[in-house]
Amino acid sequence: MDIKVIAFDADDTLWVNEPYFRETETLFCQLLEDFMPLHSAERELLQTEIKNLPLYGYGIKGFTLSMVETALTISEGNIRASAIARILELGKELLARPIELLEGVEEVVASLKERYRLVVATKGDLLDQERKMKNSGVIHHFHHIEIMSDKGVSDYAKLVRHLDIAPEQFLMIGNSLKSDVLPVLELGGHAIHVPYHTTWAHEVVDHDIEHPNFRAVSTIRDILPLL
Amino acid sequence: MDIKVIAFDADDTLWVNEPYFRETETLFCQLLEDFMPLHSAERELLQTEIKNLPLYGYGIKGFTLSMVETALTISEGNIRASAIARILELGKELLARPIELLEGVEEVVASLKERYRLVVATKGDLLDQERKMKNSGVIHHFHHIEIMSDKGVSDYAKLVRHLDIAPEQFLMIGNSLKSDVLPVLELGGHAIHVPYHTTWAHEVVDHDIEHPNFRAVSTIRDILPLL
Repeated sequence: MDIKVIAFDADDTLWVNEPYFRETETLFCQLLEDFMPLHSAERELLQTEIKNLPLYGYGIKGFTLSMVETALTISEGNIRASAIARILELGKELLARPIELLEGVEEVVASLKERYRLVVATKGDLLDQERKMKNSGVIHHFHHIEIMSDKGVSDYAKLVRHLDIAPEQFLMIGNSLKSDVLPVLELGGHAIHVPYHTTWAHEVVDHDIEHPNFRAVSTIRDILPLL
Repeated sequence: MDIKVIAFDADDTLWVNEPYFRETETLFCQLLEDFMPLHSAERELLQTEIKNLPLYGYGIKGFTLSMVETALTISEGNIRASAIARILELGKELLARPIELLEGVEEVVASLKERYRLVVATKGDLLDQERKMKNSGVIHHFHHIEIMSDKGVSDYAKLVRHLDIAPEQFLMIGNSLKSDVLPVLELGGHAIHVPYHTTWAHEVVDHDIEHPNFRAVSTIRDILPLL
């Protein structure tokens, strides 16, 4: 391996993210309990989010808009204004959550930055990801943040071109097989999967991956002996 | 001038933007006419937008969330759910507007790209700006898009560092004195102001600028003889 740039996914790779969304989702569904059981409301929200992805993209602002839309649909227009106000608040609270760095991250990035150019490659809203980066305490280890509107093969092709390297000099590390691993392997890059206990339903991949450029580890510290 | 990179602002520099926001604002205020006169509603919305900027940043998604919030406030919780649904639609319509390139843009960027590296430097939501870029028909003239969470001096400093050039090799072209001109001059870069007939209240600068690195022109075509 002749790796030049290592890109880390951010949410649930560097810091806790998905559990915060889950908590918010639960609070949201509780607001709608008069209209629909919790589980069905969750499913409605997911469907609305996926429907809106092409227009809103990833991130908390689109998520909040999808919550408002789902509330209007589920309640058939009978939701109280105070519940809509609460949904806006839930979104703002999500945007203001403190950053909880995952175990081992600091040590791993501090060690790797001596030998590689490190970047963060993430979906989501630019301002929000910059805020998290700033509050993470590890920003100084990274060359810069790349915000990607999506993580498909063509998006990684653009990223690699922008970094002025060949795909085989690129290593992606992340918790999503769908977004951080499969498209990178298809492009000819390297990928390491560091799983996280909670994965958004839309990101789940249910088959095994075997590929010469692919490694799976249990925790982020396990990537050090590989590099 | 030894310019290496020319950055163009996007909204209201390359294509029409602010008039679309104004139309949406008017439709929004009409929805609230039972609760407040048009002009006061406009002012309320602007205040909400500015208050939310640090959290939401720029772009249509944050704007839509601010419209929902303003509607709840103005109506003191008496807004109908159908009006909230209409506000979400207004946001989606804004996200789906076709791109109207401004007069002269195509000719100017096609001519400049032979001699300079051209980038787009814009605030707003990444996915939305990428969509506009893709639909603009001029994407192939640009090296890439830089989405900035804000356009202050430190943001331009980061951009220039990321582009691997010195500030004095950087030229910014845009319609906002506040965002495209003043911070770039302060950093030591060059700036050309190409005014647009409509400016968002939050971007207005009401004093004259005199600076050796600054030029003001009437239309985008007028920049060609300067370069």
